[in-house]
Amino acid sequence: MSADGSDRERILEEVLEDVSPSDEERRSLREAYEDVCESALEALDEEGVEGDVALVGSAARDTWLSGDRDIDVFLLLPPELDRDEFERVGLEVGKSVFPDGTVEYAEHPYVRGTESGYDVDIVPCYDIDSTDELRSAVDRTPFHNEYIKEAEVEGDEVRLLKAFARGAGVYGSDLRTRGFSGYLCELLVHHYGSFSSVVEAAADWDSGTTIDVEGHGKGKEGFDDPLVVIDPTDPERNVAAVLSRDSLARFVDWCRRWEREPSEDLFYPEEPEPMDADELVGALQERGTELICVSFDSPDVVEDQLYPQLEKTKTSLVEELERRGFDVLRSTVAANGSCLILVEMNVAEQSRVEKHVGPPVRVRKHAETFREKYEEDEDVVGPYIEDGRYVVEREREHTTARSFVESDGIFDLSIGKHVEASMESGYEVRSNEDCAAVLEEFGVEFARYFGGE
Amino acid sequence: MSADGSDRERILEEVLEDVSPSDEERRSLREAYEDVCESALEALDEEGVEGDVALVGSAARDTWLSGDRDIDVFLLLPPELDRDEFERVGLEVGKSVFPDGTVEYAEHPYVRGTESGYDVDIVPCYDIDSTDELRSAVDRTPFHNEYIKEAEVEGDEVRLLKAFARGAGVYGSDLRTRGFSGYLCELLVHHYGSFSSVVEAAADWDSGTTIDVEGHGKGKEGFDDPLVVIDPTDPERNVAAVLSRDSLARFVDWCRRWEREPSEDLFYPEEPEPMDADELVGALQERGTELICVSFDSPDVVEDQLYPQLEKTKTSLVEELERRGFDVLRSTVAANGSCLILVEMNVAEQSRVEKHVGPPVRVRKHAETFREKYEEDEDVVGPYIEDGRYVVEREREHTTARSFVESDGIFDLSIGKHVEASMESGYEVRSNEDCAAVLEEFGVEFARYFGGE
Repeated sequence: MSADGSDRERILEEVLEDVSPSDEERRSLREAYEDVCESALEALDEEGVEGDVALVGSAARDTWLSGDRDIDVFLLLPPELDRDEFERVGLEVGKSVFPDGTVEYAEHPYVRGTESGYDVDIVPCYDIDSTDELRSAVDRTPFHNEYIKEAEVEGDEVRLLKAFARGAGVYGSDLRTRGFSGYLCELLVHHYGSFSSVVEAAADWDSGTTIDVEGHGKGKEGFDDPLVVIDPTDPERNVAAVLSRDSLARFVDWCRRWEREPSEDLFYPEEPEPMDADELVGALQERGTELICVSFDSPDVVEDQLYPQLEKTKTSLVEELERRGFDVLRSTVAANGSCLILVEMNVAEQSRVEKHVGPPVRVRKHAETFREKYEEDEDVVGPYIEDGRYVVEREREHTTARSFVESDGIFDLSIGKHVEASMESGYEVRSNEDCAAVLEEFGVEFARYFGGE
Repeated sequence: MSADGSDRERILEEVLEDVSPSDEERRSLREAYEDVCESALEALDEEGVEGDVALVGSAARDTWLSGDRDIDVFLLLPPELDRDEFERVGLEVGKSVFPDGTVEYAEHPYVRGTESGYDVDIVPCYDIDSTDELRSAVDRTPFHNEYIKEAEVEGDEVRLLKAFARGAGVYGSDLRTRGFSGYLCELLVHHYGSFSSVVEAAADWDSGTTIDVEGHGKGKEGFDDPLVVIDPTDPERNVAAVLSRDSLARFVDWCRRWEREPSEDLFYPEEPEPMDADELVGALQERGTELICVSFDSPDVVEDQLYPQLEKTKTSLVEELERRGFDVLRSTVAANGSCLILVEMNVAEQSRVEKHVGPPVRVRKHAETFREKYEEDEDVVGPYIEDGRYVVEREREHTTARSFVESDGIFDLSIGKHVEASMESGYEVRSNEDCAAVLEEFGVEFARYFGGE
């Protein structure tokens, strides 16, 4: 069934109804901000610092989604302050506004607190005149603010795009999602003109797509990213730098779905029912594969530190298993209270011999060393010659993947610092039906995995 | 234990004793040739053709090994004869010498017969003045003859080299061995000066070795072969063209063995005892692998036709099994009264799902076709996105290698014409211990295979 333009319009109207903040929400956010702003200005005054306070981010640009409970408040501090003083003032002001607030760490520390039900970050930055004078990444934010406001980007169109990307599972520039940031959504709407134009264009994005809103003339060559969107306020920066190839592909796929058959479901995809033990057993029987789950306590770090470490661990585990002859079908990671690495292989067990390919016979020095090493070894077959090289067949160290994963060899892999520390204090390895033990925590992730999402 | 020069000399003397034809052998060969020559000249005369008769090959050049029972006699026919007449005269003369001889086929037909216990080939060629006038490959032979005789290549040194290559299993330019032809051995001795110098040089042969005896200046670039030896009588031809990379590596390995520890065994390696069923079962248990043997009647063609077809069949079978997820450890072929293709794999059975990787999502047209094809297919998982591509998991056609080998799919592989015809009239597939059924015929080959030769 294909839908005509009026269907699309009706759906978008309904979505907008849902994602646009109500007048009441706007008023309440404004009041919360004003309270924070007032306290912050007072605190700056007490510190004797000539600074200013600004609402930034989507709240300031009126591109936020209804229900968002985040407010970003920036302290614009004089560039004369040295780094220590800058950090001290930032924390003092934050603490003065939120005596019970917590100190969070990005490029520098800042205070997070709560005001009228909103999560408020009070972030210090240098009040500079141009991005040429950048002292830290957050110093850019006020320029983004200004740019988007001056460009008069239509908030409703941005909200539609954000909600659409969220529906595709690719909204957010955090390192778990590696998707589209709010600023990227704003720039895309600004560049293409509307939600619909962005979607129409993205459905045709090919590799090497570069969007240069302000015509800075910087080409794709400067960046090795799947999508390049030059920051109008800083031509050295790709706003889409964090976007992964798969998140981009997923978004493109989503845009084509919309073009094919517009549906509200694309904005609100259903979360699958958690998988239960019977379903897992059924799936494994049908697939005839070998499933290995490694689980351990989540280290006490933020998601932006945890996920890259989990991904790194998974990748090096998969590479090592492949190197050991296991054909890995698919793998994934998840984290809640605990962390999970799931690897699915074609077979549980390999033969007891593995081929060890040596140097080409013609490369005399290396060839002689190899031959000498193995010639007298009773436990190997060979050396024989294959494709011009010496080859021996030797006993495989681990005939099952499980045996390798349970061995200390796993700590020789390239795994993240915090993941390693947590695994060193203990990790569980389960295979096949026994993996049902983690379904209570990861049932939805299993449902997604076996559903092929 | 290392040996000094006198050890080497003693061994070589003993080998020479063994491989040099005795005076009695020489006389008997000469007599056999003269009888043939006389009959052939008479027959030419009867045909009214102005031709000549020549002994060629190793017998003519005194580089033959004691025990060789082959004599090559060439009829040198006038270049004025057209092809039909040339062939007719060749066969008439052959039949006149050997009324009970058989007609064999190379580039053109010739007659093979027996004289005093020798196998004699009577081969017609054009009596030309220069290789520029070559009409067929055999026309080169008289030039080789002349070149080697004029160069006064030392027969004993050639005999040592031939016996040494035979010991390494790489003597012969037939398509089963793909090794060193007699002419190649002669040229190597001529170029390096002696058996020992050839061995010393070959131990260091690197890729791209080009030997240009007459300094024709033709470089490696013209040839894509592991070893290039420019034919002094025809610079367009690589005398080592048929030598395979593995035969070359084996020879180089053999030369280094000789340098390390000279031994008579290198000239007379022991054939292994045939493997018996118990040994096979033991080897398979130790290795834990999956062995598949395909056997069928040998088609009625010469080895030079059969072996390339068997190799081709083996290669395409291995490639297909690898494509289907089976990790092939090693494979080999053999032929006696029947043909054997042996494939050893790491595992017997794969999971029931296989990954089918589609086009990159960004390539819209292909991506859409793929997605449409699989989106509604209840039997696949996906399409999902991985590394920017659509991927589905579908049911594997054959979960065991045996099941594939037994299916008609094997006839879709690229297999030689005669092998295919023979397999079409029936082939047997055996796995693991059941392969013991072919040990009676191929016990030595199995012993070699499992011994890593």
